Amino acid sequence: MSMANERIYNFAAGPSMLPLEVLEQAGSEITNFGGSGMSVMEMSHRSKVYLSIFEETKANFKRLFNVPDTHEILFLGGGATLQFAMVAMNLISRTGKADYAITGSFAKKAYDEAAKHGDVRIAVSTADCNHTRIPTQEELNIRSDASYFYYTANNTIYGTEWKYTPEVPEGVILVSDMSSDILTRPVDISKYGIIFAGAQKNMGPAGVTVAIVDKSITGNALPYTPVMLDYAAMIKGDSMHNTPPCWNIYMLGLVLKWLDKQGGIEGMQAIKHDKAKLLYDFIDNSKLFNCAVVPEARSDMNVVFTTGDADLDKKFAADATKAGMSNLNGHRSVGGMRASIYNAMPTEGVKYLIEFMKKFEQENG
Amino acid sequence: MSMANERIYNFAAGPSMLPLEVLEQAGSEITNFGGSGMSVMEMSHRSKVYLSIFEETKANFKRLFNVPDTHEILFLGGGATLQFAMVAMNLISRTGKADYAITGSFAKKAYDEAAKHGDVRIAVSTADCNHTRIPTQEELNIRSDASYFYYTANNTIYGTEWKYTPEVPEGVILVSDMSSDILTRPVDISKYGIIFAGAQKNMGPAGVTVAIVDKSITGNALPYTPVMLDYAAMIKGDSMHNTPPCWNIYMLGLVLKWLDKQGGIEGMQAIKHDKAKLLYDFIDNSKLFNCAVVPEARSDMNVVFTTGDADLDKKFAADATKAGMSNLNGHRSVGGMRASIYNAMPTEGVKYLIEFMKKFEQENG
Repeated sequence: MSMANERIYNFAAGPSMLPLEVLEQAGSEITNFGGSGMSVMEMSHRSKVYLSIFEETKANFKRLFNVPDTHEILFLGGGATLQFAMVAMNLISRTGKADYAITGSFAKKAYDEAAKHGDVRIAVSTADCNHTRIPTQEELNIRSDASYFYYTANNTIYGTEWKYTPEVPEGVILVSDMSSDILTRPVDISKYGIIFAGAQKNMGPAGVTVAIVDKSITGNALPYTPVMLDYAAMIKGDSMHNTPPCWNIYMLGLVLKWLDKQGGIEGMQAIKHDKAKLLYDFIDNSKLFNCAVVPEARSDMNVVFTTGDADLDKKFAADATKAGMSNLNGHRSVGGMRASIYNAMPTEGVKYLIEFMKKFEQENG
Repeated sequence: MSMANERIYNFAAGPSMLPLEVLEQAGSEITNFGGSGMSVMEMSHRSKVYLSIFEETKANFKRLFNVPDTHEILFLGGGATLQFAMVAMNLISRTGKADYAITGSFAKKAYDEAAKHGDVRIAVSTADCNHTRIPTQEELNIRSDASYFYYTANNTIYGTEWKYTPEVPEGVILVSDMSSDILTRPVDISKYGIIFAGAQKNMGPAGVTVAIVDKSITGNALPYTPVMLDYAAMIKGDSMHNTPPCWNIYMLGLVLKWLDKQGGIEGMQAIKHDKAKLLYDFIDNSKLFNCAVVPEARSDMNVVFTTGDADLDKKFAADATKAGMSNLNGHRSVGGMRASIYNAMPTEGVKYLIEFMKKFEQENG
C-alpha cells in the first residue's frame, strides 16, 4: 500500500480514525464556512453562525443518544482526566463518600483524583486477574451512603467492557466514564447522574469532552472548585462560560451527521458488534493468536490479543505498519497487540487486518 | 462585497481571524498529513508523526518568543479561565496571599477564582474610571509577602494595554494573562513566573491555552489540586499527561510559521503598531468618532470607539456587516464599537475599515 497518497487503517486507541467524508467536508469549508466568509476556527463563539452550529450539534446529540430533558449536554475542554476531578468536586460533598470500581488504569486515575476530596473506597477491583474480566453486580460493594458510584464503561488498555448497567443503592448517583464506547450502543441515560467522554475515540478530534449531567444533582460543588469545574456554572453558560473549543465541537457535529447516516446508535451498534465478532472469531480459531479477556467481558472497541511471544508481537506490529495499518501495538503497560475499532473504522479495515493476520500466522505460526 | 465566495474582515475579539495561507495549508492536508495516511485529527498523540509536529511547534514558540531554558512551554486545554484557578492553586500556598491589579473584567474574574484559595487583595483598580486607563507603577500596592502579583496585559473589553512590565517586591512572583497580546511584542520572560494566553486571538483556534512557566516555582500546588491543574504534572508529562488538543496545537504551529515569515515578533510588533496607529489617528481626527481610553494606555489589539449615540453605534455595526466587516460591535457590557485587530488582521482590513468610517461619517456626521 502506497503511503504517500492513500489513507491507512489506523487502529490507534485514541485519537483515532475519523470518517473520510467528515474530513473532506471539513476541508471543503475550512476557509469559508457556508458563505459566512470565515473559517469555523475564526468565528466568535457568540456569533449567530457559530451558535447555529453549536445548537444543531447539541440537538443532534440529544436525539441520537436519546438524552432526556432532565439532563444537560455539555461540551468542555481539558479532557476526560479533568472530569475525574470535576465529578468528585461536584458530587462528593453530598455525603463525603464515593465508591469506585477499579477495572483498569483510567478507573484508578479517577479514584486517585477523587481521593483528594473525601472518603473514597474501592467497591470492587479486578486487578488480581490483570483486569481481564468485568465484575458482576453481586461483587459491587457500594456503600448505601456513598455520594456516587463510579465505573469506566470500556477499558481501552485491557479490552473489557461492561455489558450491564450497574445497580446502585437508593440515593447513590451513578457516574460513568464512557470515553471509549459512547455513541456505540443505546444507554438508558435516566439511570445516570453523570456520563462523560473524551471525543477522540468515537466522536471527533481530541480537545472536547462531552458531559451529560442530570441537572438536579448540580449546585453542590466544593467551595474551592474552580468555576470551570462547576457543572452548575457550565450548565448556566450553556458550555460558554468561556470560549469553548469551537472547531472541535463543529467536528463532533459532522461526525454526528455521519452517524445518523449509519442508522444512528442502533445502526452503529450492529455494525460495531459485527466488526468485533469477525475479529474475535478469527482469534479464537487461530492457533497463533489468543485473547486473554474472558469472552463475556470482551470489548467491541478495543480487541487485545497476543502471540504469547513478545518478539513475535513486535514483528507483527512492525509488519502491519508496512502493510498500511498503524498503531496495532498494545499499550506499553500490558504489551501484546491491540486493535481499536471505533465507529469510524470501516468493516473493510477489520477484514484487511484479519487477512493480514492469516498470512502472518501462515508465515510465522 | 459578495459573501458567498469571499472572505470577510472579521474584527471579532476572539476567536478571530487566522491567516488565509494557514487555513489553506491545513485544508490541503486535512485527510492526509505529509504522507502519513491520516489527518492530524486522527493521530495518536504519542505517535512519531504527531510528536514531530508537537516538538516543532514548541521549538518554534521558544525561539520566536525568546523563552529562556528556565521556563517550560505548556499547551493546555480548558481555556484561560481555567488558568485563573490554576495560577492560584499552584502559587498561593507559598504565603497564602496574592495581589491583583483589576484593570478589566477578566482580571476581576481571575481575582474571584483566586479568592477561593487564600487571602487575595486588590493591588490597584481602575474601576473608578471605567478601566479607561492603566495604573502607574507607583499605584501598585503589592504586599511584600504576597505569593504573586497578577495583571492582565491587554484588556480586550476596555481597549487598554500595559506598556510596561510591573516591578514587584523581592520574592513576589509576577504573573500575567497575555491572552490578547501574546506574540505581538517582545517580552522579557525571565521576569515572569507564569505567563498564559488562550490561543484564539493571536495564535490559533480556541481550545488550546499556552502557559509559560518558570520551572523553579512549581511543586507547591494545594493538596486538593486536580492533577490536570498542577503545572508540575503538566511539565512532567510535557503537556501530555492526558491527550492534548492535538489539532489546535498543530494549527498554532502553522500560525507560528506564518509569524516567522512576517519577521517574527519584532516584525509583527511594527506591523501591529502601524495598524493601530492608522486607526487611532483617524479616530482622533474624526468629528464623529471618539475613543475614551487615554492615549498612553491604548491597546494596539482592541480599538474601542463610539459615536456617543447608541443608535448610531448600532447602525454603524450593522452597516459594516453589510460592507463585509463582522463583529465591530463593542462588548455588551460597555457598548459602542470595538475593532479587534490581532496579528492575522491584514493592514488592508484596517484601511478598509477606515475608508468605511470616513464614508459613514460623511453620511451620518
